Amino acid sequence: MLKFAFPGQFYAVNQRGADVLGIKGYTSLKEIPGPVDFVFVQVPVKASVQVLKDCAAKGVKLVVLYTAGFSESENELGKELEQEILSIVHQGGVRLLGPNCMGVYNPSAHLTFGPLIQESGPVGVMCQSGGNSFQLVSAASERGVRFSKVISYGNAIDINEVELMEYFAQDPDTKIIITYIEGVRDGRRFYQALKSASQIKPVIVLKGGQTPAGAIATLSHTSSLAGSNQVWDSLIKQAGAIQANNIDECVDIAVALSFIKPPASRRTVVIGYGGGATVQAADDCYRANLQLPPIPADIKEDIKKAISFPGNIFKNPLDINPYWGLEKAKEAFTTVSKWDEADVIVLLSTPEQTPFMPRDWEYEVTTQTIIEWAKLSTKPTVLAMNVNTMPGEDGLAEKCFNQIANAGFAVFPSARRAAMALERVYRYNQWRKKRS
Amino acid sequence: MLKFAFPGQFYAVNQRGADVLGIKGYTSLKEIPGPVDFVFVQVPVKASVQVLKDCAAKGVKLVVLYTAGFSESENELGKELEQEILSIVHQGGVRLLGPNCMGVYNPSAHLTFGPLIQESGPVGVMCQSGGNSFQLVSAASERGVRFSKVISYGNAIDINEVELMEYFAQDPDTKIIITYIEGVRDGRRFYQALKSASQIKPVIVLKGGQTPAGAIATLSHTSSLAGSNQVWDSLIKQAGAIQANNIDECVDIAVALSFIKPPASRRTVVIGYGGGATVQAADDCYRANLQLPPIPADIKEDIKKAISFPGNIFKNPLDINPYWGLEKAKEAFTTVSKWDEADVIVLLSTPEQTPFMPRDWEYEVTTQTIIEWAKLSTKPTVLAMNVNTMPGEDGLAEKCFNQIANAGFAVFPSARRAAMALERVYRYNQWRKKRS
Repeated sequence: MLKFAFPGQFYAVNQRGADVLGIKGYTSLKEIPGPVDFVFVQVPVKASVQVLKDCAAKGVKLVVLYTAGFSESENELGKELEQEILSIVHQGGVRLLGPNCMGVYNPSAHLTFGPLIQESGPVGVMCQSGGNSFQLVSAASERGVRFSKVISYGNAIDINEVELMEYFAQDPDTKIIITYIEGVRDGRRFYQALKSASQIKPVIVLKGGQTPAGAIATLSHTSSLAGSNQVWDSLIKQAGAIQANNIDECVDIAVALSFIKPPASRRTVVIGYGGGATVQAADDCYRANLQLPPIPADIKEDIKKAISFPGNIFKNPLDINPYWGLEKAKEAFTTVSKWDEADVIVLLSTPEQTPFMPRDWEYEVTTQTIIEWAKLSTKPTVLAMNVNTMPGEDGLAEKCFNQIANAGFAVFPSARRAAMALERVYRYNQWRKKRS
Repeated sequence: MLKFAFPGQFYAVNQRGADVLGIKGYTSLKEIPGPVDFVFVQVPVKASVQVLKDCAAKGVKLVVLYTAGFSESENELGKELEQEILSIVHQGGVRLLGPNCMGVYNPSAHLTFGPLIQESGPVGVMCQSGGNSFQLVSAASERGVRFSKVISYGNAIDINEVELMEYFAQDPDTKIIITYIEGVRDGRRFYQALKSASQIKPVIVLKGGQTPAGAIATLSHTSSLAGSNQVWDSLIKQAGAIQANNIDECVDIAVALSFIKPPASRRTVVIGYGGGATVQAADDCYRANLQLPPIPADIKEDIKKAISFPGNIFKNPLDINPYWGLEKAKEAFTTVSKWDEADVIVLLSTPEQTPFMPRDWEYEVTTQTIIEWAKLSTKPTVLAMNVNTMPGEDGLAEKCFNQIANAGFAVFPSARRAAMALERVYRYNQWRKKRS
C-alpha cells in the first residue's frame, strides 16, 4: 500500500505498539486518534475476536480478515470463533471481507493486496481464493488486461458471492466480470445474481472443485461445499455465463472480450506461415468448434497476386510468408479481410519456424506486420504466437509478444487457446442476441 | 553449420560461383575437386533437377532438398518434377531427404538446420514439417530435453517414415522417439514399423491433419493424404505408441519420460501451497484420470508435526507452505514419500500466490526446496510451476523454472500439463508390462 501511493493515513497496530516502516504504531485500535475507515487484520485466529470488537467500537467501515483457521479448518474452535466474529460484525455494523482472504486491489483507489499496476481497466474480479486472484492478475496483466477492482473474499461469512455479483453487475467501471468460486451458500440467490449480471455484461465463471478430488480440497480451503459438477455446469449455462476450466482460460476469454468485437459467426480464416504450424492451427480451430470455409477461387487468385512463393498454401489455412515486404503482406491481408464468408481471422506467428532468418529482423517484421494489419482489419482478428525460446536465446519473442499485447491486440500463446476463447465469446454473444 | 563448428570442408555452389561467408564458391558441383558427401539444396524448383543430376554424377551420399513447390503444390509441373527427381535419385544411388524439408540436426556430428545446442540427449525426432521440428526443439530445449538426431523429412519421396522409424528404433543413441506425421504412403508397413519401435522404446506420435480442416492443409503442405482420424487413433493405440495432440504435449510427455521413473500406478499426491492452486491442481489431476487417495490419519499427523499453519490443507491435495524452513519442508516431504498408497508426487510451485513475501527470497527458497526434495524422493516426482509475470517484473520465476529444468527435474508450466503427461506415461508403461 505504501509502494502503491495510497493517499490516506496509515496506522500500525501490534502487541508492542511498535512503529512499522515509519508508520506510527499503537497497541490497540482504540488508541488511534480520529476515525478509521479500513482495517486489514493479520493476527492469530484467537486474537481476531478482540480485534473485531475493537473495529466495531471504532466504527470501522470495512475489515479484511486475512487470518485463516476458521470454519475451513478441522478445528471445532475455528468454527465457533467464526460464528462469534460474524455476530460482532452484524451487531457492530462493520462489513467484513473474509476471513481467509487477501482483500481488495483497486488501482484507482490505490488499494492493493500485492499488484502494483496503477492503470485501471474494464475487468472486475471476485475470487474466493486469494492466491488465485493474484495469479489471475499476473497472467492477465502480461496480456495487456487491466482491472477495475479485484476482490478476494475467502470464506464469505459477511460479504458474499451474491452481494459481490450484484455489485459488479451495476459497477460502471466494470465491463467484464471474472469469478473464481468454490461454493455458494444459497444456490438459488446466486443463480439469480449470475443470470442478472450476465444480461448486463459477460461473466466468466471458473468453478473450483469441479471434480471429486477438487471438492475435497474446497471444503478445507474456504469451507465450501463444492456441489455437484452437473448442477454447476447447467447453472452456469442456464444463467448465460461463460464457463472456464482454469485460470488460463479465464484470461484468454477476458483477452478476447477486451480487445476484439465479438465474431458474427464461427467462420474463421487462419493465416500463418509454416506448413506444420498452419496444419496444427487448423486442427486446433476445428477441435474448438470453429469452421474454416474454403477460400473461393477469385479471392485465392487475388492473394496469389500479392504474395506467392513455393511452399505456400492457398487454402484455409493460408500459409503465406510476411517476409516479402509489409506492403505485399498488407495487400494479401486486405484481400482476405474483404472476403465476406469469413467473420474471424486467426493470425499465426511462429517465429521458431524460420531459423534461416536473422532473428531481430524477423521479429521486427513480424511485429510490425501484425500491428499494421490489426489497424487495417475490418473483421475481429486475433494473434496466436508461440514464444518458446531455446537456452541462450535473446528473449526477443517475449518482447514482441508484449509489444503486441501492449498495442491493444488480442494475443494468445497458441492457436488452441485463441480458438477456445473465440468460440466461447461467440457462443456468449449468440446467447445475448437471443435474449435481446 | 559454420556456427555449429562442423569439422568438415564446405563448398558454396551458386550460379555466379561466388564465395559465401568466406567459403569458396563454384558454379556447379562437378567443379568441386574431390568427393562430396552431403548436399543441402535450396534452388528454384525447376533448377533442382540439374542439381540432383550433378549430385548423382558426383557420388553424393545424402541430399537434403529444402526446395518446395513439388507434389504438394497445385501445379502439374511440380508433380512431374518430383517424379523426375525420384528417378534420378534411384538410378544414381543418392539418398534424398525431402523435398520440402529442413534436413538434419545431429549435435554429436555438428550437423544442424538451425538449433545450436551442442549437447546431445536421448530424444530422436522424425518430423514431416520443418517448422514444427524447429519449434519442437525450441520448446523441449527450454525444459532441459536434449536430442540424439532430429530429422525433418518433408514430402518423403525417397527416405520415408517407415525407414526413419526403423532407424530410430535400433539407434542406440535414441531412447525416446517423437514423430510428427501428416500422412503415410503405406499404412500397413508404417503400422508394423511403429509397433516394432514401441516394443523397444517409447514413441510419441503427433498426427497433423487429425481434423477435416487440418487434413485439407496437409495435402498442400507435404502432399499427404491425412487419412481418417478414427483409423489413426486406433493405429497409434494398437501399435502401443503414445498419442499427443500438439507440440506442447509431445514435449511434456518427453519430459516425463526423460526425467522420472514411470509411475507404478495412477495414485498421486499433490503437494502445493495456496488453497486455490491446490484445489485447481486436484481438479486437473482428476480430469487427467489420475487418482488422489485420501491421506491416512497417521501420515497426516506426521506431516502436521513437521509443518502446520492456519490455512494449510492436510488432505490430498496437501496445502503446506515451504517457507517455514528447508528442514521442516524436507521432513514433511519425506513423510509423504514414505506413504505407500501413493506412487507419484506432483509438487506445485505457485510463486504468484504469495505477494507478501520478498520475491528473491521466495524464489530462492522454493527452488532450493524443490531441488533438495527431488534428491530425497523415492517416488517419481514432478513439478508444476506457473511462470506468469506482471509487466515490470524481474523474470525471477523464469530463472527458477530454468534452474530446476537444468537440474534434471521434470518441470511443467501447469498441473494440467503435468497430469496429462504422467497419465500417458503410466498407460504406455502398463502396455509394455503386459507385452513383456
